[in-house]
Parts: sequence; C-alpha cells; structure tokens
Amino acid sequence: MSDRRALANAIRFLTVDVVQKANSGHPGTAMGMADIAEVLWNDFLRHNPANPKWINRDRFVQSNGHGSMLTYSLLHLSGYGLTVQDLKDHRKLHSRTPGHPEYGITAGVETTTGPLGQGFATAAGMALAEKKLAQEFNRDGFPVVDHFTYVFVGDGCLMEGVAQEAASLAGTLKLNKLIAVYDDNRISIDGETPGWFADDTAARFRALGWNVIADVDGHDAEAITAAFDAARRSTDKPTMICCKTIIGYGSPNKQGREEVHGAPLGVEEVARTREHLGWKHEAFVVPDTVMRAWDARPRGERAEAEWNALFTAYEAKHPELAAELTRRTAGRLPDDFDAVVASEAERILAQEPVRQPIRKASNRVLGNLLASVPEVIGGSADVSMSTLAWTGAARSITPDDFSGNFVHYGVREFGMSAMMNGMAAHGGLIPYGACYLVFSDYSRNAVRLSALMGLKTIFLYTHDSIGVGEDGPTHQPCEQLVALRAIPNMSLWRPGSELEALVAWESALKREGPSVIVAARQDGAVFAHRSGDLDGIRRGGYVLQDAGGKPDIVLVATGSEIGLVLEAAAVLEGQGKAVRLVSIPNGNLFAAQDRDYQESVLAFGTPTVFVEAASPLYWYQFLKGPGTVVGVDRFGESAPGPEIYRVMNLTAERIVSEAGQFLC
Amino acid sequence: MSDRRALANAIRFLTVDVVQKANSGHPGTAMGMADIAEVLWNDFLRHNPANPKWINRDRFVQSNGHGSMLTYSLLHLSGYGLTVQDLKDHRKLHSRTPGHPEYGITAGVETTTGPLGQGFATAAGMALAEKKLAQEFNRDGFPVVDHFTYVFVGDGCLMEGVAQEAASLAGTLKLNKLIAVYDDNRISIDGETPGWFADDTAARFRALGWNVIADVDGHDAEAITAAFDAARRSTDKPTMICCKTIIGYGSPNKQGREEVHGAPLGVEEVARTREHLGWKHEAFVVPDTVMRAWDARPRGERAEAEWNALFTAYEAKHPELAAELTRRTAGRLPDDFDAVVASEAERILAQEPVRQPIRKASNRVLGNLLASVPEVIGGSADVSMSTLAWTGAARSITPDDFSGNFVHYGVREFGMSAMMNGMAAHGGLIPYGACYLVFSDYSRNAVRLSALMGLKTIFLYTHDSIGVGEDGPTHQPCEQLVALRAIPNMSLWRPGSELEALVAWESALKREGPSVIVAARQDGAVFAHRSGDLDGIRRGGYVLQDAGGKPDIVLVATGSEIGLVLEAAAVLEGQGKAVRLVSIPNGNLFAAQDRDYQESVLAFGTPTVFVEAASPLYWYQFLKGPGTVVGVDRFGESAPGPEIYRVMNLTAERIVSEAGQFLC
Repeated sequence: MSDRRALANAIRFLTVDVVQKANSGHPGTAMGMADIAEVLWNDFLRHNPANPKWINRDRFVQSNGHGSMLTYSLLHLSGYGLTVQDLKDHRKLHSRTPGHPEYGITAGVETTTGPLGQGFATAAGMALAEKKLAQEFNRDGFPVVDHFTYVFVGDGCLMEGVAQEAASLAGTLKLNKLIAVYDDNRISIDGETPGWFADDTAARFRALGWNVIADVDGHDAEAITAAFDAARRSTDKPTMICCKTIIGYGSPNKQGREEVHGAPLGVEEVARTREHLGWKHEAFVVPDTVMRAWDARPRGERAEAEWNALFTAYEAKHPELAAELTRRTAGRLPDDFDAVVASEAERILAQEPVRQPIRKASNRVLGNLLASVPEVIGGSADVSMSTLAWTGAARSITPDDFSGNFVHYGVREFGMSAMMNGMAAHGGLIPYGACYLVFSDYSRNAVRLSALMGLKTIFLYTHDSIGVGEDGPTHQPCEQLVALRAIPNMSLWRPGSELEALVAWESALKREGPSVIVAARQDGAVFAHRSGDLDGIRRGGYVLQDAGGKPDIVLVATGSEIGLVLEAAAVLEGQGKAVRLVSIPNGNLFAAQDRDYQESVLAFGTPTVFVEAASPLYWYQFLKGPGTVVGVDRFGESAPGPEIYRVMNLTAERIVSEAGQFLC
Repeated sequence: MSDRRALANAIRFLTVDVVQKANSGHPGTAMGMADIAEVLWNDFLRHNPANPKWINRDRFVQSNGHGSMLTYSLLHLSGYGLTVQDLKDHRKLHSRTPGHPEYGITAGVETTTGPLGQGFATAAGMALAEKKLAQEFNRDGFPVVDHFTYVFVGDGCLMEGVAQEAASLAGTLKLNKLIAVYDDNRISIDGETPGWFADDTAARFRALGWNVIADVDGHDAEAITAAFDAARRSTDKPTMICCKTIIGYGSPNKQGREEVHGAPLGVEEVARTREHLGWKHEAFVVPDTVMRAWDARPRGERAEAEWNALFTAYEAKHPELAAELTRRTAGRLPDDFDAVVASEAERILAQEPVRQPIRKASNRVLGNLLASVPEVIGGSADVSMSTLAWTGAARSITPDDFSGNFVHYGVREFGMSAMMNGMAAHGGLIPYGACYLVFSDYSRNAVRLSALMGLKTIFLYTHDSIGVGEDGPTHQPCEQLVALRAIPNMSLWRPGSELEALVAWESALKREGPSVIVAARQDGAVFAHRSGDLDGIRRGGYVLQDAGGKPDIVLVATGSEIGLVLEAAAVLEGQGKAVRLVSIPNGNLFAAQDRDYQESVLAFGTPTVFVEAASPLYWYQFLKGPGTVVGVDRFGESAPGPEIYRVMNLTAERIVSEAGQFLC
C-alpha cells in the first residue's frame, strides 16, 4: 500500500508543481483521483505507450477534463514521451499540455474533454463501437476487437443532461465493456454539492440498467482493485464505480474544499503537502524507482505483440476480414468508392428530373452508397423514418444483436452526437446521425467538439425551414443554418437536388472532419443538371443557369429555394433581363475557394439577390456590390408549408421585386 | 366510472375528428392521456377559465406538446372560450390551435411546448417560482401564493437530458408542489421503446429524491384519483406519477402502436373507434350533459372569489406586501427604477474611468440595481463567482430556505435556462442565469424558446472570447455571438464599459423578451464616456469618438475590442487620418433603428473596419461600402489571453493595416 501511495503521489506532485508553476490550473481532481488512476493504469489498462494508435488498446477518457494534469501525469509516467518540459509548459502556447486534454495535440488523449458530461457520452460511443466491431470481426478463437473503455467522471459530468442520455442508452444497449469511475468528492465550483446535487447516483445508475459498485474508498488501492476486477466481469451491463474521494487529497489545509478545485495551492501549501505526504523530492523530480514502476512500455509492448500474433493467425484464417478491419481502422474508404460515386452521378444525370422531397433524394443516394461503405453506421434520435435516415440498407442494432448498422438513439440528440464523436474517435466506423434541424440546437456543443477534433462524423438534419409547416415555430428552424455554418472547420451542405445530395454524401464520407447535411422535408425543384455541375458542386457553389455574357442580375439560392429563383428568373427573363442563377449548396466550401473562382460564379459587383428560407446573416459576406438577402428573420407560424412561405413573403414575386430595385 | 369515461371520450373524439379533418397531427397522446387529464381537470386543477391569468391558479403544462389536442380539448371543454371552430382550425394559419401549444396564442397555455423535455423543466421552474414567492409573501393565515404545478410527460421528454437536469434539481430543492405524470405507453416515433429506453423510471426518480407513485393504471379514474391525492400530500418531494397507458386508447386496430402517434386514424378507423367506445355523436358534437360536467367556470369563479377574499384580508393586514405582490405579478418595475438607473449613470459618468474586467463592471451595476428590483432572482450553472453573477445583494436559495434570491443550478445550463423560462412565465420574478458563453450552446434551445415566447429572462454569459486564454478552445467561444444574435426576438448586449453594462441591465430588465448580456472576463479599455452616450447606447450603437467632419475611416468594435480600436485610432490619427470610432454594444437593437440613424453612426460608404473577437459573419450586414471585418474564424488555443489575441492576429497593428487598404 505504501508503495502504491508513492506511485500515486507522483501524480499529485507533478500536478501541484505544474499548476503552481503555471500559476493557473486545476489541481484538485488529479490529487483526488490519483490513487484510482494509479491502480487502473498500472494493473488494468491494456495499452502500449509506444503505439498510442494500437487499435485494440483499452480507451481511457477523463471526462472531468479540467483536471487534465491527471491525464498528462499518467502519460508522462507511463512512457508516452510527454516530457517534464512538456508538463512545465502546461497551458502555454502550442504546448502538448493545453488547459484541457485535446484530441490530436497529445498522444494518448482519446478525445477532447472539458465541456462537462461529453467525455462520458463520447466514451459510451467508443464502447458502442467496440461492441459493434467485435460482433462484426471477431471469430471463434479470434477476439481481435476486445477492449475496455474506461471513463472518469466528476459531479459536474453527472449533473449534465448529456451524461444521462448516454448512460440511459448505454444501459439499454448493455455496453458491458464501458467502465465509469465517479469521483464523488462532494465539491463543485460553487462549493459543497448537496445544495444542488442530491441524487443517489448509485441508485440512479442501477435504474438505468448499470452494474453499480458503490461506496468504494477512492484512496484504498485494494478496494479500487476489487472494484475494477468486478467491473470487468460484467457480462451484460456497463459498470459505474462510485468512489468516495477527497478533492485535493494530501493538501493539509485545502483538501476537501472548493478552493483546491481551480487554483494553485500556493507555495507554502505545496510545501506543507510535501511534508504531509512524505514526498521528499524537489519539484518535477520523480525518483527512478517510481518512474520504473510506472513505465508501461515493456508490458505494453508485450500486449501488442500478443495481439499482433493473434491478428497474424486471424489474417491466415480470415484474410478478407483481416484486410477489411485493417482498411477500416486505417480510415481508408474502399478502393471502388470513387467509381461507385461516379456511377451514381451517371445514373442521376441520365434520369429525367423528378419532383421529390430533398430528404428522399438524400435517402436514395445514401442507400446506394452504403452498400459499398460498410463502415458507415447510421442512426437517429427517434426520427428514423421522418428524416429518412433509414435506408433500404439499414438494419437495427438491438441490445442483443450488434450486427446491424443503425442505432436507435432514442430522443437524445446531444447524447447521439457525443456518442457519434466517440465512434469516430474510436475508429473503424463512420457514424451518421439524424434529427430535425431545429433540434440540432440540443446537440450543438457536441457538433462543435466534432469540428474541433476534426472527426469524420455526419449530422443529417431534415425539416430544415419554415417549409416544415403545421408543426409551427418550435419546429421551424431559421437561425440554425448560420449558427452551424459559423462553427470553425464545419462543412454544411444544403442540397437542392439529388446530384447535390450525392456530392454532399461523397464529400462527407471523404472529409477528415464533420459535415452537416441539411435536407428539406419538402419537394425540391425540378431541373436538369449538366455534367459539368458536378465539379461546381464539389467547389460548394456554381452557376446553375446563365443567360450568357454579363448578367444583369445574379440570383443565388440553396436547397428548397432553388425552385423560387427558377421561377423568378423566368419572370425576369421575360422582362428581357440577363439572369444568372447560382446554387451554393455548401457556403463553407465556397467561401474557401479562391477569390477568382468566387468571382467567376458570383460576378461581384453585379446586382445580386440571395435567397434562403433562413436567417439572412450568413450571406452578406458574399454581397460585394448592390443587392440584398431574402431570408427569414422572424419565427414561423403553424400552417401548411406553402402558406408560411407566402406569409413570410418568401416568393418568386418578392424576389422579382427585390431584383427590380437594382435593375434599371 | 362510465360517466367519467364519457367525459374522457369527449377529449378522444374531439382529437380524432380534428386530426382527421386537419389531415395531420398527433392523436395518440390525447387518446392515451384522456382519462388522466379528465380526473386532473375535473377534480383537482384549481383554475378559473374566465381569468386565465389569475395569479394563484394551478399551472398545467403538457410537455409532450405534439399531443396538443389534449390541451386544446381541455381548454374547449372547461370553458376557456376556445370554440369548436378554433379546434377545426387546428394547424391552420393564425388559428388559436397551432400544431404545438404556444404561449401567448391560446389562453390557458402556460408555456410553449414541443421541444421535448423542456416543458417538464419549465414546469419545474414554475414550481420553484411558486415556492419562492410563497415564502416571500405568505403570512400566517394568508397563503396567497399556494398552487400546484402539474406537468404531463411522455417517453421522449424523459429521454432528453434537460428533463434529467430539472428533475435532479427539483428533487434537491424539494419542490413538493410539482406533480408530474408520466404517460408510460412504451411507444415513441421509432416504435416500441424497450429497444432504446429501458430505464426503470420509477427507481430513477426515487434516486433523484422524488416521491414516486408507480404502476398506476392510466385508464382507471379511481387509481388516478388516489395518485393525485397522494401526490398533493407530499411535503418535501416533487411527485412523479407513473401511469401505464395505451397510446391511441380506443382505436381498436391502432391503439398501442406507433402509427397512432403522429398521423390521423383514417376515416374508417375513426368510425370503428366510435363504435368501440360507444360514442354515438357526430364529429365535433359533444352532448350537453358532457359539456356541463366539464364546465369549470362556476367552480373556477368560486375558487378565485375565495382567493380574492383572502387577498383582500391580506391587503388589510399586510398592505405593503399586497401592493408589492400586485406590482410584481403585473410585471411592473418599481416606480423609482428609472431614477435608480439615472443615478447609477451619474455615478459612472462622474467617476474616473478605471481599468476593470467587464464582468466586474456588469457585477457592480447589477448589484446596485438589485436593491431596488427585488423580483430579480439570479443564479448560475455552478459558476457563480467566476461569472460574477453573485453580487453583494445575493443570498442563496437552499433546499430548506427559499428566502434568498440566488439559485445554485449546479452544472446544468439547459435545465437552468428552461427553468428560468418557467419562472418568467409564472410571473412575479425576473430570472437571470449565468454560465460561460461557450456553454450557452448547451442551453440554446431554451434560449430560443424564451425568445419565441417573449419572456423576460436574462442570460448572463461571461468568458466571452479567445480572451479566456489558458482553458483553450473548448472554453473559447467564437461562433456563439452570431448564433445567439441570429435568434429572432433576441437582444444581445456585449458591453465594453460600465456605462454600457448599465444600459444592458436596464434594457434587459425592461424588455418584454429575453436578453443576453455577454461580459468579458478580461479588462475593458479605459475611456471616458460623454453623457450623450447614454442615448446612443440605448439605441444599440453610437459614435464613441469622432474626428469631426467626414471621417476617412470608421472603426467599429464591441466589448473587449474597444481597446483595440482605440489603439488603432491613435495610430491612424497620428498618420493624419480622420477616424470615427463606433461602439455597437447591441447589434440587434442597432439593426432595428431606422436607416437614418444607422447612417448617422456608420457613415455608410466610408471605409469601415469592424472588430470583434468572434465569428465575423454577423457584421457584414452593416458593411455597405469598402471595408472588412476583423474577427475570429478558427478555434482558439490554450495560452494566456493576450497571446491568443496575437496568435489570432487580432491586434491594433492588424486593424491599422486593414484600414490602410481602404485609405489612399
């Protein structure tokens, strides 16, 4: 026990010394969870610091990400190559130890955490991915996908609704290899939690179908060991280990109190803590014996070597499965993917244009692509049919059968999105998930994290505007398009035709980052594409129809409003005007094109009217001369969709009249 | 029992006939919950249809708002003046019976519902308001604030995280007069719920500190009556009544199945349902005996008359309290409010400008205003001190003492915001609630509903930009400002000085609609206001500093970036340029000014540089000539705030250089 305590104290002192040096940071969590982390990392976690991307490693997520020094200390001590200098650079510019753990910045960090509750939900997504891939790829005697996902959570995580959503679904889906550890220290930023958090967490998680191991002393290595042992034996339930801990454990004057949560201890208290815990080493010095005990490289190498041997045998016996698993975990699309897309494009260009709901066009191309991209795992927040996320190729994943490719997330948009992040971060799967556009609001911060991490996730949002009609303003998005497009590193598609929908899905499946595909519930316009349009769509915006020569007026639309500008153009052409029609299905992508291309499409300086049944704010950036934006800047009403368009004055007549202002 | 069933069947047939006529809508919920609603409304609910705004009425919220025909049937039958024609106009333009219940459209609808889970959370806010006002105003023998809040929830509501957040806090705060009824019908849109929702809901709510009445037959009036009786006796816990129901009860071929959830039954099935339930009346006909039994006006009048008598006696004994309660429930600010604001403005204008964090400036004016506006109830999602939502005038509300004026919501941004909506809709209180700007994402749909309803709520968001620094990109908002400003009917302030902060709070406290106040964590610039600025701030934007005459260049900033444009202006003036500085603390308000005023401030056509440490998208609408927007269009980094400004190239030098492009 005393040896173990010394190992744990290495975390404590790396943490307090680093936070003291940075003069900002959160020491309390790392000090409080050090004993738990020590047991987990030294006795249970199967990972190989020399290869942080080994696909069968156990995943570790610290959902209470503000306590990032816990993660950084663990990575340093166990051999991930994070140096003492890296630790000293905590919270400094371009360091490998930023304020919160960030995916892609630090080897061994499995997902970005900090926004509370989401690390937990993301971990649940990883566990779902593991279970799905295990069922798909494992064969008798070849458990090639077989790992645990461990997640540490604090009080804050458990207060957030997103954690409830994920916990409920994880329980329902029996994600037994998800093991959560609750850092029950009764302290959050406002002080002692009982005034605002009186849940019986153990009982709550039992009610959600979890295996709960309650009342574990989070500072007793034996009790912690027993808990992890029991957790790993769970065959049909995820496990929640509730650990009683003392925040800031070891600080004689500050432990157990809020002040140790988010501020340095102070030089004197650091000294007292050294004395109190009998740590006789200088700042940043960890004795060799302790470093050696922590070093996870030798056993990590052995673990991966064993797995490599297993995989070699698997490869011999199941060469196609092995090749497929290798391809998918490497994140490579199938070799024939471009050919499949090309043949879809040919099919669409050859067919007579038909009047059809845009969500239906999206559904058709998605269904046709899915057959050749088996790593795609769909799902929806209880609106599988109305979003048409459900394709002919879809089969439900159920609590007892993960062979399907479609997750019924229930009415849990935020949980869905965070779990999709977990699946994407896990690897081997490309998740898409659907809900109504207006309820993207519920999940917005998970979509943001997806963009921040650059994960390949696809958010399918239908019911995209006032066209939703009778369900009224609660269900009619208007500000959501600009809000989503404003997220850095986001790629938002709002297709208006089957060809545009095809490119949207193609792009989303290829892009190393998240995409949003917004597909109207109502009919799109009927118009024929030229084959050259394909390239233009792939650049985000293009000339859909042109009078030739210098246009008198440019009309720009997206998605369901293409029909309106087609109508308006006919009227204006009847008046002898040279009209150019532009479709910009992806403003993010179009804005990233060079100025010459943008100019060639928009003919800057020409009078221009942008039309979209949404907040006009997004389009002013492209208005570099006379013109206006026709959009929706108030809440909708409950009535049939076409009536709402009239009430909102979003009509061809209005467009003609606005255009008229700028035409002599 | 048969009589009661006939009363309930009136709801069922109004619903199926209306939905059939509208050929769209959701019959299942109303049919399934009709028996429960009948018992509640006829035997328990204390309300007066002749005065839907009677302040001591019981509140009724249907959180599963898609089943709105239940609410509309109840309002029609009990005497709220909703006519058969109104019902027939369900989901038609400008009707009083829109697709989802909407606050302000239909008398008797207490809050807009439809976005699942939020009706429940909003109801919890109403119950909190009741408890707070009761403690403040009731005196021995005078329970002038004394009512229940009833809320109906479906599976969807309980899957949403926001419901968990509110349930957890309601349990913690012992909101014993909140009574929820769970419509446990095992059906959601994707089909039978056990595949995605396996919670033991009764056990879960017990774990959250609720009084749970489980296994109630939702079609047995006696069982339902017993449950409500027991619920109303709870002295220290909110109550969850779990009712087993059959969705679409009475439809012989469709009940208990998903298809009855969101589509008309069809003419034939409607006829079969009539036969099955023995309902011999034509469509839209409810026999007089049934109508009379439902009519709640006589007993409603008596109930209000009794209360009026009580209040008259209270007025005699406690005239000041009575006057105060009357003022506050009428939504009138204190008579001296303008004088208090004026004296604050005087204080600020007289003082030497000081360097101070903008959140601190906000905190000071708020604290000074609070003394004269006792109806303000603050709170924060576990960041009371760092947002400085906590003022010198703040006292905590605790589970056992509601005399305070500050709610510790815990780490529950969405639940907080929805509960604030409930408090505002309840009346008698003006809620403000604080969190970090980036986490407004978590609560976004509640903020939207606040705007849709036009509620007087105030969302205080600090840590407003890359200036947050070391906590890194997860904590550095950039797209949130444009996303919030894009919500229709929103008023977003981003003050840059104490005077601007004062006007922000003044405006927020006066406005009949929600406001967002965004206050930077870091220091604002040091500059002196002229007294005339007050008027300009109240118009959302104004000339802060001017060279006189026609400017060569206009620099526009908000909040923490005013310092940058002041610096840049000094450089440009040194180069002999005539520089105008404009501050637009509230772009929503400024955009609503007439064109002449906007022109007088922005001098349209003059080269202009807008500067804000956020997504630039919002500002292009005001750029009507040469110029640019200097903003942040990528994720931030973890480092001290000033360094991030440099890394993001958001500096005075950059502004000077951008301006130079447009100057000859």
